[in-house]
Amino acid sequence: MSPDAGERLYHALMQPQTVAIVGASDDPAKTTSRPLRNLADSDWPGIVYVVNPNRDTVDGRRAYDSLADLPAVPDHVFVLTGADPAIEAARECSRIGVPVVTIMADGFVGGSADARRRMTSLEEVAAAGRTRVLGPSSLGVVSTSQRLVLTANAAFSEPLPMGGGIFVASQSGSAIGALASRGKDAGIAFHSMVSTGSEIDLSLGEVCLASVDDPEVTSYILFLENLSHAVDLAAFARAAADRGKPVLAYKLGRSDAAAELAVSHTGALAGDDAIADAALRDLGITRVRTFDALLEAHPLARRARTLAAARSAPRVAVVSTTGGGGAMMVDCLAMAGAEPTRPSEQTRARLADAGIDAGGGTLVDLTLAGTRYEVMKSALDILLAAPEFDAVVAVPGSSARFHPEHAVKPIVDAAGGDKALVAFVVPSAPDALRMLRDCGISAFRSPESCADAIVSVFASRAPRMAALSPLPAPATTNVLDEQSSYGVFTDLGIPHAPFAVLDTAEPFDEIPVATPAAVKIHAAGLAHKSDLGGVVLGVEDTAGLTSAVDTIVSSVRRTDPTVPTDQILVQQMIRGLGEALIGFRVDPDVGPIVLLAAGGVLAELHQDRSVRLAPVDPATAQEMIDEVTAFRALTGFRGLPKGDLTALRDAVVAVSRAADLVDSGVVELEANPVMVCAEGQGVFAVDAVVRIAQPDRSHATRSTPAVIVTAGNVGP
Amino acid sequence: MSPDAGERLYHALMQPQTVAIVGASDDPAKTTSRPLRNLADSDWPGIVYVVNPNRDTVDGRRAYDSLADLPAVPDHVFVLTGADPAIEAARECSRIGVPVVTIMADGFVGGSADARRRMTSLEEVAAAGRTRVLGPSSLGVVSTSQRLVLTANAAFSEPLPMGGGIFVASQSGSAIGALASRGKDAGIAFHSMVSTGSEIDLSLGEVCLASVDDPEVTSYILFLENLSHAVDLAAFARAAADRGKPVLAYKLGRSDAAAELAVSHTGALAGDDAIADAALRDLGITRVRTFDALLEAHPLARRARTLAAARSAPRVAVVSTTGGGGAMMVDCLAMAGAEPTRPSEQTRARLADAGIDAGGGTLVDLTLAGTRYEVMKSALDILLAAPEFDAVVAVPGSSARFHPEHAVKPIVDAAGGDKALVAFVVPSAPDALRMLRDCGISAFRSPESCADAIVSVFASRAPRMAALSPLPAPATTNVLDEQSSYGVFTDLGIPHAPFAVLDTAEPFDEIPVATPAAVKIHAAGLAHKSDLGGVVLGVEDTAGLTSAVDTIVSSVRRTDPTVPTDQILVQQMIRGLGEALIGFRVDPDVGPIVLLAAGGVLAELHQDRSVRLAPVDPATAQEMIDEVTAFRALTGFRGLPKGDLTALRDAVVAVSRAADLVDSGVVELEANPVMVCAEGQGVFAVDAVVRIAQPDRSHATRSTPAVIVTAGNVGP
Repeated sequence: MSPDAGERLYHALMQPQTVAIVGASDDPAKTTSRPLRNLADSDWPGIVYVVNPNRDTVDGRRAYDSLADLPAVPDHVFVLTGADPAIEAARECSRIGVPVVTIMADGFVGGSADARRRMTSLEEVAAAGRTRVLGPSSLGVVSTSQRLVLTANAAFSEPLPMGGGIFVASQSGSAIGALASRGKDAGIAFHSMVSTGSEIDLSLGEVCLASVDDPEVTSYILFLENLSHAVDLAAFARAAADRGKPVLAYKLGRSDAAAELAVSHTGALAGDDAIADAALRDLGITRVRTFDALLEAHPLARRARTLAAARSAPRVAVVSTTGGGGAMMVDCLAMAGAEPTRPSEQTRARLADAGIDAGGGTLVDLTLAGTRYEVMKSALDILLAAPEFDAVVAVPGSSARFHPEHAVKPIVDAAGGDKALVAFVVPSAPDALRMLRDCGISAFRSPESCADAIVSVFASRAPRMAALSPLPAPATTNVLDEQSSYGVFTDLGIPHAPFAVLDTAEPFDEIPVATPAAVKIHAAGLAHKSDLGGVVLGVEDTAGLTSAVDTIVSSVRRTDPTVPTDQILVQQMIRGLGEALIGFRVDPDVGPIVLLAAGGVLAELHQDRSVRLAPVDPATAQEMIDEVTAFRALTGFRGLPKGDLTALRDAVVAVSRAADLVDSGVVELEANPVMVCAEGQGVFAVDAVVRIAQPDRSHATRSTPAVIVTAGNVGP
Repeated sequence: MSPDAGERLYHALMQPQTVAIVGASDDPAKTTSRPLRNLADSDWPGIVYVVNPNRDTVDGRRAYDSLADLPAVPDHVFVLTGADPAIEAARECSRIGVPVVTIMADGFVGGSADARRRMTSLEEVAAAGRTRVLGPSSLGVVSTSQRLVLTANAAFSEPLPMGGGIFVASQSGSAIGALASRGKDAGIAFHSMVSTGSEIDLSLGEVCLASVDDPEVTSYILFLENLSHAVDLAAFARAAADRGKPVLAYKLGRSDAAAELAVSHTGALAGDDAIADAALRDLGITRVRTFDALLEAHPLARRARTLAAARSAPRVAVVSTTGGGGAMMVDCLAMAGAEPTRPSEQTRARLADAGIDAGGGTLVDLTLAGTRYEVMKSALDILLAAPEFDAVVAVPGSSARFHPEHAVKPIVDAAGGDKALVAFVVPSAPDALRMLRDCGISAFRSPESCADAIVSVFASRAPRMAALSPLPAPATTNVLDEQSSYGVFTDLGIPHAPFAVLDTAEPFDEIPVATPAAVKIHAAGLAHKSDLGGVVLGVEDTAGLTSAVDTIVSSVRRTDPTVPTDQILVQQMIRGLGEALIGFRVDPDVGPIVLLAAGGVLAELHQDRSVRLAPVDPATAQEMIDEVTAFRALTGFRGLPKGDLTALRDAVVAVSRAADLVDSGVVELEANPVMVCAEGQGVFAVDAVVRIAQPDRSHATRSTPAVIVTAGNVGP
């Protein structure tokens, strides 16, 4: 979308001068009566046309028979009818050149024949390119600065606070209603709200991108159900980051088990949500876990990029006038992954000079004494100046309810420096929360949302990926044989254990690698060799080798007679201090990803893994290692020997560079297990799976490494 | 405490006719002015005396010079002075026979010499038995039914709603203020609130127990900082359960890493909070994780005991008028450990008969159609009658804000059956929340607290322990040698691998167990033999044994020359499908506990373990196995062979019966690792630590199993 097109879209969608409502009712009990009433109630200054062929008037306005009959072409048409008439209305919009049509009807998804037919019809309208479609299943748009309340959501039958800078975009229509009412009661004003619905044409990312140069828009709240248009989202995220406008997101689907029946373990470990998580992070979007934080974290997120020390485990000071509330806060911070931090000796001394006994623990509890302005103000000034903290949480107690001047006002007065200062207000104290928010301070009504916001904002990073390259899953794929897979590994720089491929028909004079050795069936198309009885471990001599080959050949022939048994692969067994799995695949929504997990079934049971968009640099690979709990056992924990995590880091980088081979057809690559040896001794893949897309079934020739690894596309 | 004493205490503490306030100020800016003003503002009908030797009058009331000068002995004295005058006041209370004195002052804890002196003085007053002490650091008590607002907490300067049945007891003073204001704004009324402070005399459990027969008290909210008086808490919890009064608790300290430098791994795995968690569960107290749920879960908790199917992962139906809100709820339920459940075919058919398309997923999304009373009511009736659900969550959308008659009223009308029905209200809708709560329905403003409440309430059980038997940590303990430890194991019925103890000075003719064998240094006092180089594994023959013994003896002599090297233990190595750790110890707060974890360092890194008060029955042991994530790998997961979890369950029961040996001095027992063999093949401990208390240093003879295991105290 060109900047001009984006601007035109934005004006028509969010700042129309003329709108038409198709299917408006004047029965106030009906949902379809709401948009007209909302526009009237909000005193929207533009022109509204009503289209309803069954009525002469609606709500005292003239009702036109069709869009074509209108005296002028409206900027934005909102269609409230059922699905089939809505398609007709959209077609008419296209005919007469309406820039944007928003469709509220359901009935386009769900897989029925009717739904598919409707979807196709609407896609045709959109493809014609003369009108952009928002929805279907969109509840409409709201712009407080324009006084435009073009929505059927019941939450908008009251005036909303004006003057806010937050642009809200939601794939769920009801979420904008929830945010509107919660924001209003919390004293948080929005700039605009858009319900994007099923995104048949306009995606959430595209809508947000169109708004990004509006100087009144200062930040974004996204409510996401999926990342089906992640390319648009990436373009928007980059643009927002370039303009210093923070983006907060709540995404559904955290609990989704990995449903995919993937050939590799990477599939079971990198569920859709883990990939979404990685994508949001790499796009520079701050994902919160609690619904409250989505609203409350905003001022903090706005300052995130300027915070001095961005750490994934921020060091946080907690200062309270209430021991119980302060202790709750410390607890929740630690549970969420922050580092509640005890003041240093110097800081304690400075507090003591100010007459404040900081106690011996993490919490600086001012007790009832802290309900005096000067005490809280001094404590905050000292803590904000102390180098050992990345952020300070002030926790005012009961006085905040009726006397915010005591312990809340000093928070307002202490804020504004370059360190994050937020507040968890322990009692119910709506006025105190508003006072803080009006002054641009993130104020939280629960310790859980406060901790979530802090950890999420500090975990967010500048966008690492400029664009995404998703690929639809190929119709036909092919698993290379293990030798060919190691060829790809070698080209990428992924180390593996020494091996040789032998002909099963020939006698064995020697074991071609150091013993003990693993003996494996060798053929293309096999992802799980042991399921076929195709693996024998611990072979020490040629007699053992002969017997292993007999076992394997007869077992494979019995289990799957279609598998060729003419070759086996003999590989040196390498004993590591631990095992890892490094996987790569191309996700249909976000493109290449890399996954790191500990080896074995426990990694899956504990969902102990880290995912990023691929490729990654060594620093990001190191972050991934740090995120996998099991690898702490290789860092000298409890006196255990240290593993070669530097080599593991390099192997992760190497696997992630499979992203460069996507054009050559690589869609999946897995090194599993990777044996992690002692510090300085390296890591070695002892099994390899490389899956490549077959361009076309009719030309189904078995791919070889030579086809996919060429000089031009390998390496960093 | 006798029932009579309890009743007298309750009357003096919560229903006094006469109170005296020592140290009251009439400067409204001072905290010490609040109690007098609160009593006046609340129209408390009793008699208030003011004691202040520096003033003639306070707030227009006569100020007496001392408690002894009062015209009558008050029922309850509230002392607002500093610490030292407060001790004097407490002494005077004791002299003149005041039943209860509440002390607000800090300065009794923290370890300074002054604090210790004060604590001792106050303990002496309490020990005299003539007056009971609440505090120090108590902010006082509130009884709405009595209109008694005897507190210095700033949150009580407004009238509180009357008529509630919830008794709140808090170790944190500020928490009662937070709960009071949050409850008021949420439409939740309390019966009474008590701040128990440092509990030098009256403990939280004792105060709650005293209230348990008040028919106006229907349930309890506890805010806990620790379980230092767990015996009282247990007595109260049992009494509350007997009377069908539910107890909800929020406990601080979830994030505490196990700081204890315990001799065994059990210590590192069973941190203080895991033990508290086990204790609360076994006492029948419902522990919530979110502060909001502490208030909001109440009506649900009140019905928990009557719910048909108490499961730790309740099967929950979610029905919404808003897809986004409903999906958030499903997500949060799954993240919290519930089982969001898809309606059965029969239930779908019944919904279809009522004109409701339930879709194909877990969420029953009524969409905008559900904002009609009849639709929501029918859906709820059908879901509540469906046998596949333990609970139903209704999720009304934006209409709930201004039109609760549409989708909220049907929730009220559908409730009351024997299945749990709760609501998560997506928009900000205070009136809807109040309507639901007034009708005894748990209504939640966040999906996180809703999910927390459901999972916590369904996880709660009837009290399993009638009483606790904590024991202070013994000054001196002694680790038995491994052979003696196995003697204790055998008496308890804990299976172990075959072994023999050999004299290192004798030549070895044969390996006395099946090979491969483990060879270990054998002496008392050793918990970690491998730290001394005292273990050699994989010994196959007598030559290997001789060499292993040489290695062990020289290594142990070098590392710790005080360890005798005259004996080694040779044990058959048993290869299991997995490893477990089963530990027992006596906690100083709650008494005997049993811990089950997977073996190895990963269990510690993932904190993957289960704790209960000991002893446990087989059903509880099975629950413990189910709670350890790693053991899912032994249940046939991913086609892996099944482990003998029945034998593991029996071994947990056997270890837990070490509780019967506490009188004989056993304070810690650990079977680690326990090899878990294939189904039907049993489990076998391959190392054993038993630690016993030495009764007195002066009689330091080395204990033997014969001393501690006698016929009378072993076995069930």
